[in-house]
Amino acid sequence: MAILQPLIDMAEICYRQGIRHVVISPGSRSAALTLAFARHGGFQAHVCMDERSAGFIALGMAQQIDSPVVLICTSGSAAYNFAPAVSEAFFQQIPLLVLTADRPKEWQHQYDGQTIYQTGIFGQHVKRSFEISPDYQHSDVQWAINRVTNEAINLASVSPNGPVHINVPIREPFYPSANEDFIASGDVRIINRQEKEIVWPQAVWEELLDEWESASRILIAGGQGKPDAALNGVLDRINEEWQIPVLGDCIANLSGKEVIRHHDLFLGSKEVENLRPDLLITFGMSFLSKEFKQFIRKNPPRYHWNVSEDTYLADPFQSVTRDIPGNAALFFGKLFEKLDYQSFVENSDLGHDTSFQSLWLQNERNACQKKYEMLKSLSVFSDLTLLDSIFKFIKDNHQLHIANSMSVRYANVLAVENEWSGVLANRGTSGIDGCVSTAIGAARVNGKRTLLITGDVAFLYDRNGLLTDNLPQNLKIVVLNNAGGNIFRMIDGPGSLPELETFFETRHSFSAKRTCEDSGIAYFRVSDLSDTEGIVKEFLDFDGIALLEGFTDPAENTRAWKALKRAAH
Amino acid sequence: MAILQPLIDMAEICYRQGIRHVVISPGSRSAALTLAFARHGGFQAHVCMDERSAGFIALGMAQQIDSPVVLICTSGSAAYNFAPAVSEAFFQQIPLLVLTADRPKEWQHQYDGQTIYQTGIFGQHVKRSFEISPDYQHSDVQWAINRVTNEAINLASVSPNGPVHINVPIREPFYPSANEDFIASGDVRIINRQEKEIVWPQAVWEELLDEWESASRILIAGGQGKPDAALNGVLDRINEEWQIPVLGDCIANLSGKEVIRHHDLFLGSKEVENLRPDLLITFGMSFLSKEFKQFIRKNPPRYHWNVSEDTYLADPFQSVTRDIPGNAALFFGKLFEKLDYQSFVENSDLGHDTSFQSLWLQNERNACQKKYEMLKSLSVFSDLTLLDSIFKFIKDNHQLHIANSMSVRYANVLAVENEWSGVLANRGTSGIDGCVSTAIGAARVNGKRTLLITGDVAFLYDRNGLLTDNLPQNLKIVVLNNAGGNIFRMIDGPGSLPELETFFETRHSFSAKRTCEDSGIAYFRVSDLSDTEGIVKEFLDFDGIALLEGFTDPAENTRAWKALKRAAH
Repeated sequence: MAILQPLIDMAEICYRQGIRHVVISPGSRSAALTLAFARHGGFQAHVCMDERSAGFIALGMAQQIDSPVVLICTSGSAAYNFAPAVSEAFFQQIPLLVLTADRPKEWQHQYDGQTIYQTGIFGQHVKRSFEISPDYQHSDVQWAINRVTNEAINLASVSPNGPVHINVPIREPFYPSANEDFIASGDVRIINRQEKEIVWPQAVWEELLDEWESASRILIAGGQGKPDAALNGVLDRINEEWQIPVLGDCIANLSGKEVIRHHDLFLGSKEVENLRPDLLITFGMSFLSKEFKQFIRKNPPRYHWNVSEDTYLADPFQSVTRDIPGNAALFFGKLFEKLDYQSFVENSDLGHDTSFQSLWLQNERNACQKKYEMLKSLSVFSDLTLLDSIFKFIKDNHQLHIANSMSVRYANVLAVENEWSGVLANRGTSGIDGCVSTAIGAARVNGKRTLLITGDVAFLYDRNGLLTDNLPQNLKIVVLNNAGGNIFRMIDGPGSLPELETFFETRHSFSAKRTCEDSGIAYFRVSDLSDTEGIVKEFLDFDGIALLEGFTDPAENTRAWKALKRAAH
Repeated sequence: MAILQPLIDMAEICYRQGIRHVVISPGSRSAALTLAFARHGGFQAHVCMDERSAGFIALGMAQQIDSPVVLICTSGSAAYNFAPAVSEAFFQQIPLLVLTADRPKEWQHQYDGQTIYQTGIFGQHVKRSFEISPDYQHSDVQWAINRVTNEAINLASVSPNGPVHINVPIREPFYPSANEDFIASGDVRIINRQEKEIVWPQAVWEELLDEWESASRILIAGGQGKPDAALNGVLDRINEEWQIPVLGDCIANLSGKEVIRHHDLFLGSKEVENLRPDLLITFGMSFLSKEFKQFIRKNPPRYHWNVSEDTYLADPFQSVTRDIPGNAALFFGKLFEKLDYQSFVENSDLGHDTSFQSLWLQNERNACQKKYEMLKSLSVFSDLTLLDSIFKFIKDNHQLHIANSMSVRYANVLAVENEWSGVLANRGTSGIDGCVSTAIGAARVNGKRTLLITGDVAFLYDRNGLLTDNLPQNLKIVVLNNAGGNIFRMIDGPGSLPELETFFETRHSFSAKRTCEDSGIAYFRVSDLSDTEGIVKEFLDFDGIALLEGFTDPAENTRAWKALKRAAH
């Protein structure tokens, strides 16, 4: 048996636990891990030389397939380069199995190459961090590696999903000799974690129904979540049959026809106190809309139920009164069953105010109308005119990835929706550090047309994702090139400072053109309103990976953005 | 007084403590820190949008000026992107003052944007991590920020230097209003840390001299260190007057004429046991030469003194018997005074074997001669022929920065030396993640011609350093483009694996050409032996920032490298 057999068997455990994808950054210390997965035969192995991008590629893949992707790197600062993706995966609840090769502990701080303190290197940003011993011939170590690998996979994929880290110290020699067997054992132990079901006791329902019945104005609001047919189905029924308004940011991926999506446009205006709910029910992760958060904080509901599988209590509206553990689709389904909805909608004694939904919908329709009028009135090329054109064309036939900073704000105010395959953004940590690589990872495995909308800074920041092998041909990228971090001109505060261009926008004249040429990506450019439609169509029709760069003026973008935000006031 | 006055005053404390450089990555949460330094008037502020590169730019600057450089980033994963540079600075003992803006603690895990767990985020890779409270109007907080800022600066620059972290939570509003004063107080308290001197008691000298006199074969060897005139002066005297061999890797920057530099070429051969010292005296940080480390481990000295200002006991040769705290130049100076060297060299009773130096020098000269013959014999263009040509031309008029992986191995085997301004490499963690940015940072402040030698993978990895403003015109870059991680073909192990090209070398066809065009860098290319001299000369003579890319064949490089390594056996 090879000395490193327990590491070879890790790959087999991963395979038998259902893992099929591994993202590898090259290294010597990690050679045994690389070879274990590369030689196994059951994995699609993806290679990316820059660990920061590799991490986000794995995250993008895991987000699509909703099961763990393995990440492998060598020892030293390589592991730290995974950290941005690991922290994003943690807060966005994406399952990753992070395997960092390490020097054995005895070489710490001995001026040995690529040796840092890797134990617990991701801090609180993993669900758990395991450490194994390098004595691979000791039977306790063999037992522990089997158990830890099983536990880590199970833990990563039990809700809330998340990254799990195994630090793997390896002694020399770490390359197999030419004729050395490097084959997984056939009989590795698999520890299956059985499913569990959450049931809310009758006493809980009685308390909930009391509050429900005493609330005359009820609002349901969803934070970030992937498209979920079961959830959307039950929300549609609640929305339609009970006339309860349902609100969702673009990244909530709520598909109902009457979902409130333009709250960013009307909640900032003055006379909105009458939209205050008595009972607010929230679910999902991050809310994009600052307007909605501020509205609720200013107009707190009497009751606020938050349905969540989180082990943390997140209360961004500062109003939660009931923390309801569990799956939102399941909860709303049960709620629907429990409530005697006939009596609920027909019996006015219950005090349910159906005009509340009308009020929300009236604001929604007005804002939506005003948005269309305003967009139609734009006569100068800008980020907004380009996005408007793109969103008109793609309709539902692309999965949308939206980079952080302005792109995601644009998308939410424009209320893009995508029933087919979702609107995604890295809102776990809201960094710009992995938006390109996340979209690359997603496109690799989703089998869908995939469109990334990004600003120039987020694009440049993560351009090393394009250094990976086999760029997915189903990926298209739109770069809103406004020559810097345009957001700083748009938000209150830095917009009027003399330091704006140098220290906030960091104005530049970079274009994505040569980066595209380097990576064999078809390049389109647009800088004029009259050309937009034709070029956007040509770009979207292009068969293969392509990038469209729109060159816009930061001052013009700011004018258009401010006019849009005021349109419904 | 502005609410954030204590943060504004941090800049004044930094200034009065002698700090003059700040590297800023843009962000909103960090706006007050950015403005405090930008508006102060006493700082050179450098802006880089990618925090990973920003970190290494700061490191490159701090390494040159040997005093702390301030690094500023916004909250969230931005801080994690500093981590590769912070860990390199820690192990390479480079002073940095890392200021990470943060959300106040109450927003942790509340799905608020750019909020992660930043307390102690750099783990053990900082000398200390401070946390301040966001209640800037409380007098205790004001006192603490003043003290902590003073303490952090003093700590970063007390030997062994290193990075110190202050996590700075800031509540909204964090932008000053248009007419708000944002001026440092004139009367900030400065806490001066007084110098201390290390003295070794007479009893210690007696023990040391006993061992010295009982050792007939003495070897002095230096690990990584900057050019140090005092140290080189005393080592030259020891070397010449006592005929004691002194060995140094290229990154040890030892300038003596008889320094042993070619040990990588001869210590791997068989009959070298007679080079074993009785007493080994080491100083400095990391040793590059694996051959030297293995030689000493196999042939341990009876006594091994390690002179170091480290608070950690590094023992990479596994033979240290005395850990001597203090500065090496000072120690050797005192040793020279203490020893009665007349009696030492003249009195053979002391058993000092002067033939020991001859033996080392004989090996050195032989290896050096063999190296020249071998290089002369190369008739096919390769990494080695290009480097040989470059090293011939530059002589002592460039500061050399050598990227990790093969570049630094080439440099050590070729025994490059540079009395004028040093041979530098990121051997703290030995990562490839910041080699370009480090050289950019260095060139910004060193006022010297600066030359970076890098492989294609290390260049691509850190190309975002080139996105910074004001690239230094005194920087030149040589990219050894062997279409991937050529090192994996050269070292034992992966070279013969079927997975070599895909999973280790990660073969690619990227060139640096378009990246140069993007950043306004003059581009030169060479791929032929007969052109080399002319192009290298033209490149080095070019007035401004320029990059020379050599396109070499990985198989040819491997042949040449193996022939060179065998040349002196």
